[in-house]
Amino acid sequence: MIKYVIVGGVAGGATTAARLRRLDEQCEIVVFEKGDYISYANCGLPYYIGGTIAEKNSLLLQTPVSFGNRYDVDVRVKSEVIAIDSTNKTIKVRNKFNGKEYSENYDKLVLSPGAVPIVPNLPGIQSDRIFTIRNVADTENVKQRAVLSFSKLKEVVVVGAGFIGMEMVENLHQLGYHITIVEKSPQVMTTVDAPIAAVVQHQLKEKNIKLMLNTEVQNFEDSDDAVCVNLSNGEQLKADFVILSIGVKPNTELAQAAGLKIGPAGGIWVNEFLQTSNPDIYAVGDAIEFANPISGIPYCCYLAGPANRQARICADNLVLGNKTAYKGSVATAVAKVFSWTVGSTGLSENYLRKHNIPFLTSVTHPFSHATYYPDSKQMTLKINFSPLNGRLLGAQVVGEEGVDKRLDLLASVVSNGGTVFDLTDIEHAYAPPFSSAKDPVAYAGYVAENILAHRFFPMQWHELQAILATPNWQNEYFLLDVRSAMEVKNGAIEGAVNYPVDELREMLDEIPSDKTIIIYCAVGLRGYIASRILLQSGFEKVYNLSGGYKTYQLMSEK
Amino acid sequence: MIKYVIVGGVAGGATTAARLRRLDEQCEIVVFEKGDYISYANCGLPYYIGGTIAEKNSLLLQTPVSFGNRYDVDVRVKSEVIAIDSTNKTIKVRNKFNGKEYSENYDKLVLSPGAVPIVPNLPGIQSDRIFTIRNVADTENVKQRAVLSFSKLKEVVVVGAGFIGMEMVENLHQLGYHITIVEKSPQVMTTVDAPIAAVVQHQLKEKNIKLMLNTEVQNFEDSDDAVCVNLSNGEQLKADFVILSIGVKPNTELAQAAGLKIGPAGGIWVNEFLQTSNPDIYAVGDAIEFANPISGIPYCCYLAGPANRQARICADNLVLGNKTAYKGSVATAVAKVFSWTVGSTGLSENYLRKHNIPFLTSVTHPFSHATYYPDSKQMTLKINFSPLNGRLLGAQVVGEEGVDKRLDLLASVVSNGGTVFDLTDIEHAYAPPFSSAKDPVAYAGYVAENILAHRFFPMQWHELQAILATPNWQNEYFLLDVRSAMEVKNGAIEGAVNYPVDELREMLDEIPSDKTIIIYCAVGLRGYIASRILLQSGFEKVYNLSGGYKTYQLMSEK
Repeated sequence: MIKYVIVGGVAGGATTAARLRRLDEQCEIVVFEKGDYISYANCGLPYYIGGTIAEKNSLLLQTPVSFGNRYDVDVRVKSEVIAIDSTNKTIKVRNKFNGKEYSENYDKLVLSPGAVPIVPNLPGIQSDRIFTIRNVADTENVKQRAVLSFSKLKEVVVVGAGFIGMEMVENLHQLGYHITIVEKSPQVMTTVDAPIAAVVQHQLKEKNIKLMLNTEVQNFEDSDDAVCVNLSNGEQLKADFVILSIGVKPNTELAQAAGLKIGPAGGIWVNEFLQTSNPDIYAVGDAIEFANPISGIPYCCYLAGPANRQARICADNLVLGNKTAYKGSVATAVAKVFSWTVGSTGLSENYLRKHNIPFLTSVTHPFSHATYYPDSKQMTLKINFSPLNGRLLGAQVVGEEGVDKRLDLLASVVSNGGTVFDLTDIEHAYAPPFSSAKDPVAYAGYVAENILAHRFFPMQWHELQAILATPNWQNEYFLLDVRSAMEVKNGAIEGAVNYPVDELREMLDEIPSDKTIIIYCAVGLRGYIASRILLQSGFEKVYNLSGGYKTYQLMSEK
Repeated sequence: MIKYVIVGGVAGGATTAARLRRLDEQCEIVVFEKGDYISYANCGLPYYIGGTIAEKNSLLLQTPVSFGNRYDVDVRVKSEVIAIDSTNKTIKVRNKFNGKEYSENYDKLVLSPGAVPIVPNLPGIQSDRIFTIRNVADTENVKQRAVLSFSKLKEVVVVGAGFIGMEMVENLHQLGYHITIVEKSPQVMTTVDAPIAAVVQHQLKEKNIKLMLNTEVQNFEDSDDAVCVNLSNGEQLKADFVILSIGVKPNTELAQAAGLKIGPAGGIWVNEFLQTSNPDIYAVGDAIEFANPISGIPYCCYLAGPANRQARICADNLVLGNKTAYKGSVATAVAKVFSWTVGSTGLSENYLRKHNIPFLTSVTHPFSHATYYPDSKQMTLKINFSPLNGRLLGAQVVGEEGVDKRLDLLASVVSNGGTVFDLTDIEHAYAPPFSSAKDPVAYAGYVAENILAHRFFPMQWHELQAILATPNWQNEYFLLDVRSAMEVKNGAIEGAVNYPVDELREMLDEIPSDKTIIIYCAVGLRGYIASRILLQSGFEKVYNLSGGYKTYQLMSEK
């Protein structure tokens, strides 16, 4: 009878155990979890703090006993695995109830130790008013502080504006806290590109959340009833408590000590069958690294979906032999930020630039469903694609409705190695409450197809900003606003001339043919039509502002 | 200068014209539309009747003038094309303003005549209280009758329970009508399979809508203030008016008279470039037929999404040469029925049976998002797949939330020729408000994978019904309910023995090893775990009820 030992009883570990049992009723399975709980809803923790999830029990999907009964698994909580002896195939376990240590042998070992929050070595970081959010115990601590303790200031500082940071902002806001976000990058949520992040930032401001970008923490100082956060810009913030959400790193201590290979990204190295450098030890979840399927560059991916997939594949390979290869993840992530949804799949501009991968980009603002049916919402959709073959490298969406479904489709094209042409071929379930005959995803594909075929030439918001910042730009450029006069009245880019698209054919003589023409409309569609008219009427250098006035205006907001 | 003439100015025709202009600023484009409007929102018509769309103008996306201005197109409404002379490349047009007829020449002709409602030749069908819903004029007539006329009975009969029929039911219900649906099939919405239709039927009953299945209309009789509908079962219904929504057929009269090839499905034949049997004439939209990408069998597809795609491809091929092939549509459709969403993609059981295509099927009841996050809703998801290679042949979903996004993903796998294994590889955008770590689509894929690998053996609801209808079935079968005692108290299948799954390992001796074991739980998951336990403990014939008690109970409802 084969004996499987699993280190870690949350997402990856519990799923591996359950699948192992379903595949093999006779084997022995032991799960060690150093915390009090197994198989809990990690991703739900922020919502428990905010009260959207009212009962802690809702987060505990299984108890050690219920899980053990159902799957005939020996579940040992408060049991920390502190060493692996891979030669003798034993592990050393510390029982945290009584402090005793003992050995346990295994035939096959599965590591699912997860990730640990990054805590920078700053003066004052030990304050008991500074929290990370990673497990049930962390969450209990924050909930205690945020809900039950007497709060004088009702002020919180959230350091780090990633996905979890944003979820914490929403939940603490819901509890009535005034929040300041401190983020060292020039934008929130750095896995999405600036025009997408700008939409989120705009929403945060609408909620009176203070956003300090390009700002770092120097140190923390505790006082009697608050913690002071001293910033790189010299300012000091005072808060009841601080949420530290600057990121996580793979928990590789145990693996490293056991001599298992650690990869270049700092995660446990595994082959495509999720086997570590020791053939009797497999690993899954946040602690492993694998090659990004698009770039080929190894990275660590801290997401529940991939962990679940890996766990199942790991169990299959353990019982049935190494037959199922893990294809990797393109890091598809989504977050709810108040009434908005924001997410990304694949590679961002920042990543593409950093790794010198050539790309084109396009921003569109399609509606969630037919505009003639009530309550359609405009979203912002950005795709990054290869100028060589149109391969979809990455995509990001932000909006109030229908965002997650477009992300899923975009993710499936990105992870299949598909192109922008594939986006136009997708068949959508259409009725007016759900989409348009031309879905936002198809629409983005058509725009990209037109860019690749040189049917129009996009200009990005920052390119236009740079041009307009040069003196006498009018000598070289003609900025053409093709919106209606009524739209122009409500705001336009300084220096633009307004010829509405529907009258453009009559105004061609007024447009200087020796200058570069930069066209813009509200979102880019009429600008495209105007581009086509000019390009086919003898004008040679014609650009259309990507995402139109909507994106330009948002990116120019202070 | 090339001259394009387009017959039909709604979805297909208008989109073709717009794309033609964007590709070629110099060509001449003339659009003939026999009705008063062009480019209107066909799919929104039922919602205008119900009042969800308050203004008729919202439906009119473009006026002939605005469209003409933007795209430099000669739009002629109330102009019916009554003949094509393909030898001389002219068409004959009847101006419905003044009744005059005239000829117009073309270089290339595009036919987009749409579909016409099927109106059976029944006695009394000419009554002015019987309506079809196909264009703005029809809609105005129904709206006049339903909203503005004095109504004595507040009763409507809807004949035909397809997608449009269902949308009409919802909208008329919203206007306060009591509705009776008359449908000749044994279920509503025949493109979805029985367990999906049953959910819709249950909802209709909850709304006090009378459903007469397996019922046909014999004839209609007008009285002073009502119309009587005499049925095949001898019953008579009295209604203020009748909506006839038994289907549509391709409008091929003009094409047929011009000698263009009509295909076996009754639509205008086109090649993959959307060119008819005459190389100077192309056709798009509801009037054409093409091969179903899964079965290869030609059919007509009456959907807006494919029409839009065809129109763009048609314009590309006209201007740039026949380079873009239309890949066909797998008939992905969706409808809102009150607070429920129902839809399908690919092939149904009925279709597969009719064409002798071997298939397996699986019903699951996953939740729209993590159950620990508020307001998750259980959906029903049915997939049909090939027993040979796991190819996904069709999929259907019904539920209150997140249905359309699962349909989109399923449609993309179906139309890419993908398999149930591909469903498990899809990377989903996951956070608790949007999905689960194992998304409903992945879940359906895993279940199918387990069926194909013979990890369990599904039994369908009708197979169990047939077994339980035979006398002394207990001699051969052992019906095992593995739910908790509490669940059993609220209802169970007669004759079942209850051993909860978590105690099953202790009860193995009580289960007769010489009988066929039929296991069921609430939805199928615990039944699967129980199947694994029994199959690996020496039991040889073990089945798990697909969709569990939930589907069985619904299918047994009268």
